[in-house]
Amino acid sequence: MSTATPAAASPRIPPADAPGSDPAPTAWTRKHLLGLEDLSREEMTAVLDTAESFSEISKRSRKKVPALQGRIVFNLFFENSTRTRTSFSLAAKRLSADTQDFTASVSSLSKGETFIDTAKNIEAMGCDVMVVRHPTPGAPHLLSQHVSSSIINAGDGAHEHPTQGLLDLMTIRRAKGKIEGLTVALLGDIAHSRVARSNIWGLLKFGAKVILCGPPTLVPRSMERLGCEVAYRLEDVLPRCDVINVLRIQFERQQGGMFPSVGEYSQFYMMTQERVRKAKPDLLILAPGPINRGVELTPEVADGKHSAILDQVTNGLAVRMAVLYLVSGKMPAGE
Amino acid sequence: MSTATPAAASPRIPPADAPGSDPAPTAWTRKHLLGLEDLSREEMTAVLDTAESFSEISKRSRKKVPALQGRIVFNLFFENSTRTRTSFSLAAKRLSADTQDFTASVSSLSKGETFIDTAKNIEAMGCDVMVVRHPTPGAPHLLSQHVSSSIINAGDGAHEHPTQGLLDLMTIRRAKGKIEGLTVALLGDIAHSRVARSNIWGLLKFGAKVILCGPPTLVPRSMERLGCEVAYRLEDVLPRCDVINVLRIQFERQQGGMFPSVGEYSQFYMMTQERVRKAKPDLLILAPGPINRGVELTPEVADGKHSAILDQVTNGLAVRMAVLYLVSGKMPAGE
Amino acid sequence: MSTATPAAASPRIPPADAPGSDPAPTAWTRKHLLGLEDLSREEMTAVLDTAESFSEISKRSRKKVPALQGRIVFNLFFENSTRTRTSFSLAAKRLSADTQDFTASVSSLSKGETFIDTAKNIEAMGCDVMVVRHPTPGAPHLLSQHVSSSIINAGDGAHEHPTQGLLDLMTIRRAKGKIEGLTVALLGDIAHSRVARSNIWGLLKFGAKVILCGPPTLVPRSMERLGCEVAYRLEDVLPRCDVINVLRIQFERQQGGMFPSVGEYSQFYMMTQERVRKAKPDLLILAPGPINRGVELTPEVADGKHSAILDQVTNGLAVRMAVLYLVSGKMPAGE
Repeated sequence: MSTATPAAASPRIPPADAPGSDPAPTAWTRKHLLGLEDLSREEMTAVLDTAESFSEISKRSRKKVPALQGRIVFNLFFENSTRTRTSFSLAAKRLSADTQDFTASVSSLSKGETFIDTAKNIEAMGCDVMVVRHPTPGAPHLLSQHVSSSIINAGDGAHEHPTQGLLDLMTIRRAKGKIEGLTVALLGDIAHSRVARSNIWGLLKFGAKVILCGPPTLVPRSMERLGCEVAYRLEDVLPRCDVINVLRIQFERQQGGMFPSVGEYSQFYMMTQERVRKAKPDLLILAPGPINRGVELTPEVADGKHSAILDQVTNGLAVRMAVLYLVSGKMPAGE
Repeated sequence: MSTATPAAASPRIPPADAPGSDPAPTAWTRKHLLGLEDLSREEMTAVLDTAESFSEISKRSRKKVPALQGRIVFNLFFENSTRTRTSFSLAAKRLSADTQDFTASVSSLSKGETFIDTAKNIEAMGCDVMVVRHPTPGAPHLLSQHVSSSIINAGDGAHEHPTQGLLDLMTIRRAKGKIEGLTVALLGDIAHSRVARSNIWGLLKFGAKVILCGPPTLVPRSMERLGCEVAYRLEDVLPRCDVINVLRIQFERQQGGMFPSVGEYSQFYMMTQERVRKAKPDLLILAPGPINRGVELTPEVADGKHSAILDQVTNGLAVRMAVLYLVSGKMPAGE
Repeated sequence: MSTATPAAASPRIPPADAPGSDPAPTAWTRKHLLGLEDLSREEMTAVLDTAESFSEISKRSRKKVPALQGRIVFNLFFENSTRTRTSFSLAAKRLSADTQDFTASVSSLSKGETFIDTAKNIEAMGCDVMVVRHPTPGAPHLLSQHVSSSIINAGDGAHEHPTQGLLDLMTIRRAKGKIEGLTVALLGDIAHSRVARSNIWGLLKFGAKVILCGPPTLVPRSMERLGCEVAYRLEDVLPRCDVINVLRIQFERQQGGMFPSVGEYSQFYMMTQERVRKAKPDLLILAPGPINRGVELTPEVADGKHSAILDQVTNGLAVRMAVLYLVSGKMPAGE
């Protein structure tokens, strides 16, 4: 099966003038979304195609379909994240689900049992889908073994952030018409980035070439074993890139001496107009928000014609609607 | 009237296959739920029967009935409580009410008038039901004299927590088929527990025998006057109990020197497998969450076959739906 | 066109027994509500008339109309404000819109671009209306130039708070049948008050006489240039007033030495029963909450027959429904 382009996918998408109609059935059979490492290209394509059909809804003034009416989606966040939490909440509301935030501090959760107790309590209140963010890698996987609700991983430590990976894939597919055969560079702090990890799994499975670029302290050479190219000089790889995904520098990590200074980082890796001019004319620039203007990219680049930063936000909502919809089809309490 | 069992109650419950239908009329005539001390056995039975009929809804994938559509339920919490607040919010949403949280710090409320001003402001916004938690005993009662909204007490200091009492009664009635004639021990910090007080009123009115058991500093002998038995040694009463309700040790109270140490407390009062073996074979163990594993009960007991801890959470939602539904029938703005 | 009284306005209001019907079309053509300084008397009348028709809904037990179903209203608050935020949320829910709170700390927004980035992200999630509170005067105006969502100013520094001004106008019009020709005193801290500023613009345009009264440090003489009378002794102006709007003393401002002490302030400017007796027998007393009893006005006056404090809260909801409704008619994504 070739990489599905929006055009190729359209026979499976209901016409835009069929308001409220559900997407056509797909190959999706999973109850949880834990990471892109687990998914096949066909499964990811199912999410992207479903997201395309849902993205129509966001353009209407009545941004709602009854697909998940009466279902309950919990945001169970053990790390702060206004943006991702808001995106999931809106996605759930557009599917007519009820949403409930359950924000917990990790301090009260030193024992593993208590984390599961919290989730079991939420399940006992009738939760259908738990959207889980946790600082510990694997926490959503652990939960999925102890509760019968569907689990969506909204970020587990430095491990995976699968809906971010999927929204990046969707943004690339929409802009380029395909993913296979493209050269995509992930730029910056690869080592600590769950966004990088989910991108790597997704891009490789779709047949893209993946370059990891950044300071040696933040780009472990060992990641070549995944099938990626590792580069330390942006100038060396820039002319070959179709897409650059500019990862966020997390200032709290700077304390660890991972790089000399923000100024030095920006000198070597910030996307500037000058660097953009050395790249392909149709270079696509992605960046998971919130961006640090003047650190990872200049304001001119962030707001320029190559940037798809706001498209990513819009596509993120469609991807999250698709994931909520697809995992709900496998819920134990399903009709 | 004999204790209503779920079976005996069923003629008053609409069939489960009548989706969205409202429960049949009951003997309930109150506008507020302030405490179980005020309620008759018949009134509590009305809540439990209504909760039984609503508990069907929580098993459906579409967990919603239109009963309170367009009504507004405020959570007015002057103490932190994620669980109780979440349970009330979900209960209101399942009845299709709109919910609004209004969390206030007590610090800004040193004057009594200001507490009532806050509530009057909320009422002026069109509030139908206020779910109130406050550290001062009697605060919900005071409010009920100053606003025309329905008031539900969600915990007032060490006084009452009536929906917790009702969900405990529901869990016992479901498991045992009756409440009358059972021997129920409340274990732990009785003196400071609103859960204990609401349980005592409810259980005595249903004709259960109530034993209060814990260290002498936490179980005042004077509570015998309510009609309870007071015991200081768990082993003495354990073989007679049909139900043990394991109250939470509130560590912040430990500062007051109420007991020597958590370790010593657990040695004498923690529910262990060994102690369970000395009890009746059908012992029912309740515990209002969140539990401290290894303090009030061992993980084996918490997760064991005698434990109804998660049933309590599920029943809590049904009880809160019932209470919201019943007090709404008496609202001044009713149809 | 003469000042619209509720009676005069009624032909434009659908009958109360037409549940859920939308208000008739008005002269309103704006996409944003940034301040009352910008609005004509006709535009303000359009809001007040629409609010009158919506105020019917708040008296029903089913407090909901489908007008904004599927629209998304964001509360984007960079200052704490439980009351205003709650009022906007309920107003949106009564119009069947989905609401989302996005509370941000100003500390993370030292750069102007980031404030706009935050708003652009929210817009990319499909936001239709942003209700914005920000400590910087003009922040909502700046936003309105960078996003295509409708912007409603919910308070920008000491500049404007237009929905508070409109709800004060509505409360006066309801109580007095008109605004034109009335004498209205604003009492207290005029210099730092966005409520004062919005009241001044609104009242002057409706043809009321406006007196600004308070200590010289808080009532700049220069405000006479707006067309107001400035007075420093309450007793001098009290007998002429039809309406007194008692502004809140913001204790955090007291640090700046703006007046000697709260006690001295109250001695000269607190509304007491004794002062009320020196005023017209039909004096109307307004106060934007939360009030400090015993500082700006005595409890007897706050709860007395002249006070319209709780009417203001109720009217605030109707005004906010009207504003959300009217700006939505001009939204780019409109039907």
